[in-house]
Amino acid sequence: MAMNRTERVLQKMKEHDLTQLIVSDPYSILYLTGCFTEPMERMWVLLLKDNGEKYLFANRLFNVPELDIPVIWFSDTDDYVGMLARHIDSSRTLGVDKVFPARFLIPLMNSTGVKTVLGSQCVDDVRAVKDKEEQKLMFESSAVNDKVMEDASRYIKVGMSERQIAEFIASRYLAYGCQGNSFDSIVSFEANAADPHHEPDNTVLQKGQLVLIDIGGRLNGYCSDMTRTFFTDQPDEKHLMIYELVRKANEKAISIIKPGVRLKEIDAAARDLITEAGYGPYFNHRLGHFIGQTDHEQGDVSSANENPVEPGMIFSIEPGIYLPGEFGVRIEDLVMVTEDGCRLLNHVDKNWKIIG
Amino acid sequence: MAMNRTERVLQKMKEHDLTQLIVSDPYSILYLTGCFTEPMERMWVLLLKDNGEKYLFANRLFNVPELDIPVIWFSDTDDYVGMLARHIDSSRTLGVDKVFPARFLIPLMNSTGVKTVLGSQCVDDVRAVKDKEEQKLMFESSAVNDKVMEDASRYIKVGMSERQIAEFIASRYLAYGCQGNSFDSIVSFEANAADPHHEPDNTVLQKGQLVLIDIGGRLNGYCSDMTRTFFTDQPDEKHLMIYELVRKANEKAISIIKPGVRLKEIDAAARDLITEAGYGPYFNHRLGHFIGQTDHEQGDVSSANENPVEPGMIFSIEPGIYLPGEFGVRIEDLVMVTEDGCRLLNHVDKNWKIIG
Repeated sequence: MAMNRTERVLQKMKEHDLTQLIVSDPYSILYLTGCFTEPMERMWVLLLKDNGEKYLFANRLFNVPELDIPVIWFSDTDDYVGMLARHIDSSRTLGVDKVFPARFLIPLMNSTGVKTVLGSQCVDDVRAVKDKEEQKLMFESSAVNDKVMEDASRYIKVGMSERQIAEFIASRYLAYGCQGNSFDSIVSFEANAADPHHEPDNTVLQKGQLVLIDIGGRLNGYCSDMTRTFFTDQPDEKHLMIYELVRKANEKAISIIKPGVRLKEIDAAARDLITEAGYGPYFNHRLGHFIGQTDHEQGDVSSANENPVEPGMIFSIEPGIYLPGEFGVRIEDLVMVTEDGCRLLNHVDKNWKIIG
Repeated sequence: MAMNRTERVLQKMKEHDLTQLIVSDPYSILYLTGCFTEPMERMWVLLLKDNGEKYLFANRLFNVPELDIPVIWFSDTDDYVGMLARHIDSSRTLGVDKVFPARFLIPLMNSTGVKTVLGSQCVDDVRAVKDKEEQKLMFESSAVNDKVMEDASRYIKVGMSERQIAEFIASRYLAYGCQGNSFDSIVSFEANAADPHHEPDNTVLQKGQLVLIDIGGRLNGYCSDMTRTFFTDQPDEKHLMIYELVRKANEKAISIIKPGVRLKEIDAAARDLITEAGYGPYFNHRLGHFIGQTDHEQGDVSSANENPVEPGMIFSIEPGIYLPGEFGVRIEDLVMVTEDGCRLLNHVDKNWKIIG
């Protein structure tokens, strides 16, 4: 594909009948300019026009390197929304980034009267399909995640706390050259694992409990994400049945992925299997999410997503069953869609295993 | 004051002619309900009505305890913006939280046609004036910050890296019972200190360089924030002159604070002193910011803020001078406005000092 990233976004704008687009997701701006700033409550906007004009609106406090894009600088006390408004054609619909906050959007709309629509899919759809350089970085990041998961599985012992294990995992990412975790590690023992987003605490691992580990690192700006659930003793019948059900749901979903299949069909492949077994209500989240420069990028693998997948898309497949007060199991892989199927980015074995 | 927090917000809504308000800042929701969730890209809204009705819109994945507020639950695949829309009177102006993102706001506006204005000041103005319990927590948090700054000043030695010092500081907050840093520590040596937001890196401290330390912790949910700039040897004339100028600007601003004084006058007190000395262009940020449950809360001490201060307000006073390629100095305290002046929350000495 000869088009560069900005050209691909302009093409999407054309498809959506947009002549102007506010990009304000810092990772989208990074993707399109190479420049990253965490703006906090300050305004940070890349304005794209269909004629190829672009402008970066930057607070003087931001560290912006020399770019081939005109930068419109402002201070905290300037009327920066007014400065942005003057570059917008109020007679044409304005595409707006999904993360653009009301603090800027409402005064912009009230001062210009411009009609707005959500427009960030023009960037997100491009970001969703990783280019060759990004694919390489994503596989390298997941290769480190394999090592960290294997390290964790050897490190974990009965008597350790969730927090202690999470700290060990954080140190391993740094040891392998990552910038750090790509999200806060989830380390959950037995009943804690029934909360999909449990935060590691001082709970101590007891013989016989299971351990759910959902972790990822950020290597060279690209994120990994994987979940494995381990046992610390021979699992009883119910634990084993649930584990195998989740594993089969994971593998079933992965088996149907190829270009043209809809994301909702992938979700359904896993969900139907769990529902048929009577555990549908206990799989209470979408099957997966897109990932790249951030752990959660736009795009999900859910019953609401009608879009077909394309080669180069990378997303997670993470079915789970959560039995409140009892335990939870989740098994998550990252996959990349290829010309005729998909490839796994991570490779830690999914057969049930005793550790600790 | 007999009114509870929600009553105070309803009073502000009345003053702003608002009958309905979307609150979506997670810390504002925490402040008004006692319940905290980090919603990431999901919707998390407290809807307040002037008749006292309130509704919490929560994703089923969120961990929401039993509350005396009706909770309207939704899943990722539900039309949650539609559910919110059905609780809004589209014939009346809707107040919207400044952090409410376009991803929800634009479809809400396009489906209801409701007129919107920024409304979060109704909550922010209440949050800005700390109640007795919050004042106690803020002073306790800053007392820990004093200890951490003193610990750091004893720990720092020539030959250490910025990152090593930042890691030591992070460990001290945990040792004193904090939940952690309230923001990423700034530890900057000499020329690095000329970037107000420099991130700690592997730069090694050399004899004669200055060290700028801007740090804060979060204790029992409330944040501290303080900056000191230390020398590692007898400073030369220019370093000393700049240091004394910044210290005087800090002290001058603090000396004029009392109820009724405008925030812009406080900013001007420090800025005029620096400008008269010829360094105005090198003090390129506002004088301070409000602080409480988060390090940066709504409200700043800047030339654009006409509001008078009130007893119970807590904000930072942090003048700085940044000489690109040379060095930077910043001295920051937190102050609370009292009936007849203000009180400092932190107490580390501001006279120039040699460490290392």
